[in-house]
Amino acid sequence: MATLNFPANHSPQADAEALRKAFHGWGADEKTVIAILGHRNAHQRQEIRKAYEEIFQEDLVRRLEGELNGDFERAVYRWILEPADSKAVLFNVAVRNAKKDYNVIAELATVLSPDELLVVRRAYHNRYKRALEEDMAAHTSGHLRQLLVGLVSSFRYDGNEINPKLAETEADILHNAIKEKKGSREEAIRILSTRSKSQLIATFNRYREIHGVSISKKLLDEASDDFLKAFHTAVRCINDPIKYYEKLIRNAIKRVGTDEDAVTRVIVTRAEKDLKQIKELFHKRNSVALEQALAKETCGDYRGLLLTLLGKEE
Amino acid sequence: MATLNFPANHSPQADAEALRKAFHGWGADEKTVIAILGHRNAHQRQEIRKAYEEIFQEDLVRRLEGELNGDFERAVYRWILEPADSKAVLFNVAVRNAKKDYNVIAELATVLSPDELLVVRRAYHNRYKRALEEDMAAHTSGHLRQLLVGLVSSFRYDGNEINPKLAETEADILHNAIKEKKGSREEAIRILSTRSKSQLIATFNRYREIHGVSISKKLLDEASDDFLKAFHTAVRCINDPIKYYEKLIRNAIKRVGTDEDAVTRVIVTRAEKDLKQIKELFHKRNSVALEQALAKETCGDYRGLLLTLLGKEE
Repeated sequence: MATLNFPANHSPQADAEALRKAFHGWGADEKTVIAILGHRNAHQRQEIRKAYEEIFQEDLVRRLEGELNGDFERAVYRWILEPADSKAVLFNVAVRNAKKDYNVIAELATVLSPDELLVVRRAYHNRYKRALEEDMAAHTSGHLRQLLVGLVSSFRYDGNEINPKLAETEADILHNAIKEKKGSREEAIRILSTRSKSQLIATFNRYREIHGVSISKKLLDEASDDFLKAFHTAVRCINDPIKYYEKLIRNAIKRVGTDEDAVTRVIVTRAEKDLKQIKELFHKRNSVALEQALAKETCGDYRGLLLTLLGKEE
Repeated sequence: MATLNFPANHSPQADAEALRKAFHGWGADEKTVIAILGHRNAHQRQEIRKAYEEIFQEDLVRRLEGELNGDFERAVYRWILEPADSKAVLFNVAVRNAKKDYNVIAELATVLSPDELLVVRRAYHNRYKRALEEDMAAHTSGHLRQLLVGLVSSFRYDGNEINPKLAETEADILHNAIKEKKGSREEAIRILSTRSKSQLIATFNRYREIHGVSISKKLLDEASDDFLKAFHTAVRCINDPIKYYEKLIRNAIKRVGTDEDAVTRVIVTRAEKDLKQIKELFHKRNSVALEQALAKETCGDYRGLLLTLLGKEE
């Protein structure tokens, strides 16, 4: 369930005008930006962009980039784009940055539903004039490339049917891949990038039954290179996205020097999806509310936006 | 351009009833089947299926399978399914048959537009409850698997922009792959399965300028294994599908014992697309009309359907 609070009715024109007013004079009125954009769903935000463009002949996204800065600017930028477009940007940044973040690629490719992933691939075309898999492939090599290209190109079957025998066979293959038996990585890539999520979860369950430890725990102990790390992320996101995101934001906050990119990604991409469950699990797991933990480790308008997206009411 | 002749208006109910009548008694009236189905476009054929199901509580496709046989039955079956569904069947048969036909996979995956390929992947889900890439991967291995899975999973950028410098670099990489230099096959797979068709054609052109011979000709001489053969097919289909199909049907007819599967595939999949150009090129290249060549090498109702789809009027 979502955490975002938004009005059933809003006037895109009035919102556009209020934002324009907030940009007047020296420095923007960030509180107004948060009060408006932090309380609008994806469709409403796109309506505001359109109204703003029509009334002021100016691109609202560009204007916001000019007016805001730092983590707050980045979070607003991720938030105001269409969700699929925003994910296209996340993919692109993850693979093109000097410090490549293969885990973000594995995460997004597996957390999205097969249909959502197609929409993101289309958004990637529109934004970058290249294919998503094209950029992933051009910046990686070897087994890591095979895995990431396989994951972002997949259009998995979305049904619930499972084949228990296949789960057994393929649990073995995944085990061999972790043990780095020759030839097993190709097979593990095939399994992870083509099987349905239901089938994969059956395979992971079978793995735990056979080996007495979850495949995720096993990978946590054994993952020594980028390939196995991305593999681990994909397994976790397919198995239990809520658990994955709870741990991601927990680690991002706990670190000396908060990992704002990860925090922003969790809040912005999940606020309209399942942030409520992530928040509940966080509370249960850490005996402190996520809002409280975030309020302690972040500050200013960035903190204001995060807490608003988490559903905090003034 | 298409060769199919079909009426602007037709009554799906009247068609369904005429077909039902054609099934009465011993043996079906195949002429009526051809006269109706051979003159209806994809949308109209689906309307007939729906009307037939509604009126007679019977699946028209099953009934046709029961009534017809041999090459004629197979051609009618390929023709009456929705085009995307029919291609899903072609993919499935090509990879699951004892005699795997990797060229058919490479052909379909590259001839289809990026958007058409997505529709076929969706049809594959519906029909087989598995992903297209899942079945391709499960029945292949090594570089051949990487290539075929890459091709069927691709969602290429569809724009016309090209990067001439990239074309130059990648023409070299493709050359190395043909020469079987170590590591070059992975790179060739990356290029062939992720670059836009416009970019690939620029790369193939550059190849010819550098090496004084087309990459297709080069591959024809050097292709010694399944990987290079599928590679060759993909290159030809991206470069010039009309030329590819003309040669495919020419060879299928010329063979001792016509290759009916190939003939059917060309006629059925292209009759509503570009069979007119294929026909023209065939005539120019062989100094004999395609209809004439086919009439000589096929017979009965199968021949009747092929010629009808080629636009022959009684």
